Amino acid sequence: MINIAVLGHGVVGSGVVQLLEKNRESISRKAGADICVKKILDLREFPGLPYAEKFCTNFGEILADPEIRVVVEVMGGTHPAYDYAASALKAGKSVVTSNKELVAAKGHELLRLAGETGQNFLFEASVGGGIPIIRPLHQCLGANEIDEIVGILNGTTNFILTKMIREGMGFGDALGIAQELGYAEKDPTADIEGHDTCRKICILASLAFGSHVYPTSVDTRGITQISAEDVCYAQSIGRVIKLLGHARKIGDKCEIWVGPAMIERDSPLAGVEDVFNGILVRGDATGDVVFYGKGAGGLPTASAVISDIIDCVTAEGTIVSLHWAGADDSKLAKPGELPTTRYLRCKGKGFDTVECVLGKVNPLHRPDKPDDELAFIAPAMSGSELEQKLSQLGVHGVEVAGNIRIWGQGEI
Amino acid sequence: MINIAVLGHGVVGSGVVQLLEKNRESISRKAGADICVKKILDLREFPGLPYAEKFCTNFGEILADPEIRVVVEVMGGTHPAYDYAASALKAGKSVVTSNKELVAAKGHELLRLAGETGQNFLFEASVGGGIPIIRPLHQCLGANEIDEIVGILNGTTNFILTKMIREGMGFGDALGIAQELGYAEKDPTADIEGHDTCRKICILASLAFGSHVYPTSVDTRGITQISAEDVCYAQSIGRVIKLLGHARKIGDKCEIWVGPAMIERDSPLAGVEDVFNGILVRGDATGDVVFYGKGAGGLPTASAVISDIIDCVTAEGTIVSLHWAGADDSKLAKPGELPTTRYLRCKGKGFDTVECVLGKVNPLHRPDKPDDELAFIAPAMSGSELEQKLSQLGVHGVEVAGNIRIWGQGEI
Repeated sequence: MINIAVLGHGVVGSGVVQLLEKNRESISRKAGADICVKKILDLREFPGLPYAEKFCTNFGEILADPEIRVVVEVMGGTHPAYDYAASALKAGKSVVTSNKELVAAKGHELLRLAGETGQNFLFEASVGGGIPIIRPLHQCLGANEIDEIVGILNGTTNFILTKMIREGMGFGDALGIAQELGYAEKDPTADIEGHDTCRKICILASLAFGSHVYPTSVDTRGITQISAEDVCYAQSIGRVIKLLGHARKIGDKCEIWVGPAMIERDSPLAGVEDVFNGILVRGDATGDVVFYGKGAGGLPTASAVISDIIDCVTAEGTIVSLHWAGADDSKLAKPGELPTTRYLRCKGKGFDTVECVLGKVNPLHRPDKPDDELAFIAPAMSGSELEQKLSQLGVHGVEVAGNIRIWGQGEI
Repeated sequence: MINIAVLGHGVVGSGVVQLLEKNRESISRKAGADICVKKILDLREFPGLPYAEKFCTNFGEILADPEIRVVVEVMGGTHPAYDYAASALKAGKSVVTSNKELVAAKGHELLRLAGETGQNFLFEASVGGGIPIIRPLHQCLGANEIDEIVGILNGTTNFILTKMIREGMGFGDALGIAQELGYAEKDPTADIEGHDTCRKICILASLAFGSHVYPTSVDTRGITQISAEDVCYAQSIGRVIKLLGHARKIGDKCEIWVGPAMIERDSPLAGVEDVFNGILVRGDATGDVVFYGKGAGGLPTASAVISDIIDCVTAEGTIVSLHWAGADDSKLAKPGELPTTRYLRCKGKGFDTVECVLGKVNPLHRPDKPDDELAFIAPAMSGSELEQKLSQLGVHGVEVAGNIRIWGQGEI
């Protein structure tokens, strides 16, 4: 029997306890041992639960218990999660986490510590919820050089965009519905401003390219500026707008960004709708491989957490060889450094100056387009060049109201 | 340094050798050791190759070489592949294979032998080419009870069906183009009759449900009977025709079949086109997870083979715990035992008798439908009931020309 402790009895933590119970037999068979939750750390009380006696409020109790071999951190946030994870590793316990904030902020340190202490630090659940992605990327695609990773990594924003695309809804209304349905939190900032997606693409990029990428190094934009008009224009060129986390190797540099992008309707990512997640990995041997499923929720995430627990148990004594080096920002392309093709939607007067400033453009069409609106695909240019041109346009009374990347094969 | 031998220098074997060379540095880092191809078994000669001196024609040489720790079997067929794999395991070498015929026919025996000899027998490349599926199914989804697996597992037939759907082509013409492009072999039987798909779904079902499923136990139909008319009728009800390998747990039985099916256009499998493969796994915790990518080809398949080699090297001395028991046909639903909803296309006279025999049906529509054609969705019934009704129809001069399963949520 292997004893474990679960830190946090929220949606994921309670899912872990339930799923271990529900599928006990097959999980034991795969792990080669019965997995028993000995302690659950949570400050709240859960008096009605059949396993109420397992709760404790003092992490020190768990740390000092030599029978607890794996610590499952599903509290979220970096503090005290980091301290708990680090202490557990130092005490000779393996650590499994679903906490993307922790891994994005401290992954390199915790992996190094795990290596030094001969323990495992695993985090399959930190990206893509129940979708297998960390292990497949690291292990199954291990013979590939990874050229590109593009993911729809946040279910809340994908739900909002799906409403906007399918029902022509505005951003505010779609967000309202997401909040009513419990898909978006009261304070939806982390989702709609792209921070959640950013943490996840940082974890995938760190793993694929071998050195830690901090969220603060990544050009991150959310979807609050997307309008129903932009959705219409995207449709007019056979594309849909998705919030992407994107990492690509170009020469010896890596370009990483988070933001809305117009992607081709034919792309396997275009069909990823509602709260689902989809992740495309382009390897030099495999070509495009796509993983799709529920990116959040108690049981899907618990499924990923438990697969890591099984790994810790079967691999005890050997280190499952996830690793990446410390951050090296010289390997990252600076935000806006590389030329990008963009859709722009302008409002104002004096559209003659648009072609004067940007060269010939082909106006896009949508029903009921007002006369003072001009949307088009701008030629590829760097961020600084774009800024300069936009300010030139501003001088001539042309204001840019929509500005969205174009991503995908047949860039326009 | 770890020495390996490669049996067979065809598309996959040469891909393995090339990819090991191309990505040597990162593969070595992941394996924790340099991987060196010491011997290549092939009866043919390859005098121009830089590694021509590695070829040999006698398997005994490889077997007797104590330096060779992993044997990579990429010859195809069951003989002599089975003898070679079994001898290698007995000689204390791990075996990696891409050979679905071997795994579908002898998987249980070879896994048992691997367990007895303390070696690994791995076969990620046997299903889905470069798409990670075996390890994710077994390991990442290990906390789930698997309820259903549905896959587009054969690129050749998917290419043919895509041509028929997108361009309204007949089966024969589409097959001709697939042959011209090298996607279909001169003798395309194994693909178009569903045998290849059958081997792959047998491997996935064995792994997911825990006992060996032999291809001979599976109701297997191909796509040779699919007509352009059927494709049209599918479109008229918002569906597309795909060749599926299907395995589902119902109570304590498992229902497995291979055949064309009409699936909803909204299904994530509907967008799997051309030579791509897609596999949907429905777990009780994760819900639907889908894996998508290139299901064949030298480099994608080599990528999967090498991920297994890396696993053998990093896990040396520990058995990677793939396993399943011997066949138990009492756990399999008999072909046609369970009621199935089907699309039927009838030709002849006396359509009044259709409703008399089958109950009320809603006729489907297509452009230029001749008067002597009636297509509809028949109520769910077992195979024996259907046969009986079809013979009744025959007596009244109504011949069934199209007969395709309906698969997917909103069954009609």
